[in-house]
Amino acid sequence: MTTSDGLAQTMTAIAISEPGGPAVLKPERRPVPLPGPGEILIRVRAAGVNRPDIAQRNGSYPPPPGASDLPGLEVAGEVAAIGEGAGRWRIGDHVCALTPGGGYAEYVRVHASHVLPVPSGFTFSEAAAVPETYFTVWHNVFERGGLRAGETLLVHGGSSGIGTTAIQLATARGARVIATAGSADKCGMCLKLGAERAVNYREEDFVTAVREVTQGKGANVILDMVGGDYVDRNYIAAAEEGRIVQIAVQGGAVASANFARLMAKRLVHTGSTLRPRSDEFKGKVAAALEAEVWPLLASRRVAPVMDMIYPLREAWRAHERLESGEAIGKIVLDVA
Amino acid sequence: MTTSDGLAQTMTAIAISEPGGPAVLKPERRPVPLPGPGEILIRVRAAGVNRPDIAQRNGSYPPPPGASDLPGLEVAGEVAAIGEGAGRWRIGDHVCALTPGGGYAEYVRVHASHVLPVPSGFTFSEAAAVPETYFTVWHNVFERGGLRAGETLLVHGGSSGIGTTAIQLATARGARVIATAGSADKCGMCLKLGAERAVNYREEDFVTAVREVTQGKGANVILDMVGGDYVDRNYIAAAEEGRIVQIAVQGGAVASANFARLMAKRLVHTGSTLRPRSDEFKGKVAAALEAEVWPLLASRRVAPVMDMIYPLREAWRAHERLESGEAIGKIVLDVA
Repeated sequence: MTTSDGLAQTMTAIAISEPGGPAVLKPERRPVPLPGPGEILIRVRAAGVNRPDIAQRNGSYPPPPGASDLPGLEVAGEVAAIGEGAGRWRIGDHVCALTPGGGYAEYVRVHASHVLPVPSGFTFSEAAAVPETYFTVWHNVFERGGLRAGETLLVHGGSSGIGTTAIQLATARGARVIATAGSADKCGMCLKLGAERAVNYREEDFVTAVREVTQGKGANVILDMVGGDYVDRNYIAAAEEGRIVQIAVQGGAVASANFARLMAKRLVHTGSTLRPRSDEFKGKVAAALEAEVWPLLASRRVAPVMDMIYPLREAWRAHERLESGEAIGKIVLDVA
Repeated sequence: MTTSDGLAQTMTAIAISEPGGPAVLKPERRPVPLPGPGEILIRVRAAGVNRPDIAQRNGSYPPPPGASDLPGLEVAGEVAAIGEGAGRWRIGDHVCALTPGGGYAEYVRVHASHVLPVPSGFTFSEAAAVPETYFTVWHNVFERGGLRAGETLLVHGGSSGIGTTAIQLATARGARVIATAGSADKCGMCLKLGAERAVNYREEDFVTAVREVTQGKGANVILDMVGGDYVDRNYIAAAEEGRIVQIAVQGGAVASANFARLMAKRLVHTGSTLRPRSDEFKGKVAAALEAEVWPLLASRRVAPVMDMIYPLREAWRAHERLESGEAIGKIVLDVA
């Protein structure tokens, strides 16, 4: 193992003191973790905040076996120590990474293949806002959903971290985008990012909007984190051979749908979760992102939409903000 | 157009006199159809009976635009006339074919690319029992479901025409099969055809059986014609990355399911119907069948399971039999 000079022994981290609301997020002193073979240690400068962190805090989404009990699935910072066989990186490199948990801390150890350079010109805060949503959108929209240039993507939660990423990546790759969001401001952001149509779901039926925009053909890919009564409406809004990719079920896991419709249109309803996937899988997504998406980030053709930045110690405020539903884009913790 | 000598002008066909029960199937005199460009006319010797015929008779599954109003989706017989550009075939060739409707008749015109030779050694009755189920199983289990050697297929309705075909083809291609059926006799047939386990669904829960047979891993592909409360149980019985292919919803189109499970296991729920597909699509399936499956038929490694044969004029009896749920394998009409 190679380490930076004067590597600290202990660090500040935000722990979940017990399952509950934002107030259970409390600063603690913890030992600085050591990178194992194939891992690197990152001195965290910024950490992204994501919905699975809230589920973990509530106690409904426990960390997978072997993972840190600390929340936090993405970070940006400097390489502080390098485990055996993690040779691509050098001490001091500016990187961002998907973490197996533990991102809400001054140091985190990560699998070297899940680490990418900070995109050229990006701040640490911006870079920390990239991994979780870009890994998720890339795999679900392009690999799993197979979105191609000229096709139409319907993305729900268009102003969320996932939504803003999906709109930008899909339009950058030549697809048309229809987005749903819950306010005029949020719809405005979707349009600004390249959506051809933004649907305020509080006032308008997305099925009708999709029908209008696509001249009755329907959406080729639908990225959905709502579930509940959206499932059957997604089946109606989808085109023949449409692919519906479920990445969360915030509106309810159990729902009723008309499966004759799925059959008659030859839909593909699939989905995935990122955190439990293998290191190998995540490494492959990272490699695809570096090849296909990092140039788009470096040129600012796509970029994370930044909502708010909070100090690490005020992670509870970041959770309150995310749960309020008022955020547009990503929330990040600043780690001094 | 080339025709056989003394081609008749009129023929006997079984028409649907009005939507209703089996008694609405009535013999009529009809003009013999003429093959258009790319089509051939078959002098029918045997016609297969399928569930979509019953739905058409009931009025719930109208023929697609341009198709015959007569029921019947598969036949075997002799080539009686050849349209322009349908040059592969010669007058008198023994063939079987997927038809766009109109199979319950002495003559039917079909797209030449949907025609295949009668498998070596097969009677016309056996050959007429092949197209609909083999096109359906091939596309849904292998092309859409992607079943591979070593994987486990769960097939519902294991003693049906579709089920018996799926069991044989899947085992012939190196997959393990678990089948469900509604009686001890039907389960016996499933085992005889190569299923490793047959589940009498009236007495046993298929989810438990799949768990046992696969040591908790689940089924990689599920072929389902039931829908209804099977949907959510299929999600439970499926392996990670399992593919569930819906080819009918006999137990109900609208059902409730847990989509968190679909997401967490990264399932693919898809499905298809055969009749409305393009001529080009059906031609591609026919070509794949001829290359991959016709040799298995010729060697009797796989063969249709024959339930009963009725005279054309007694098509109503064939429908009664199919609706009784007592059939094991295929029901065919003999056309003298």
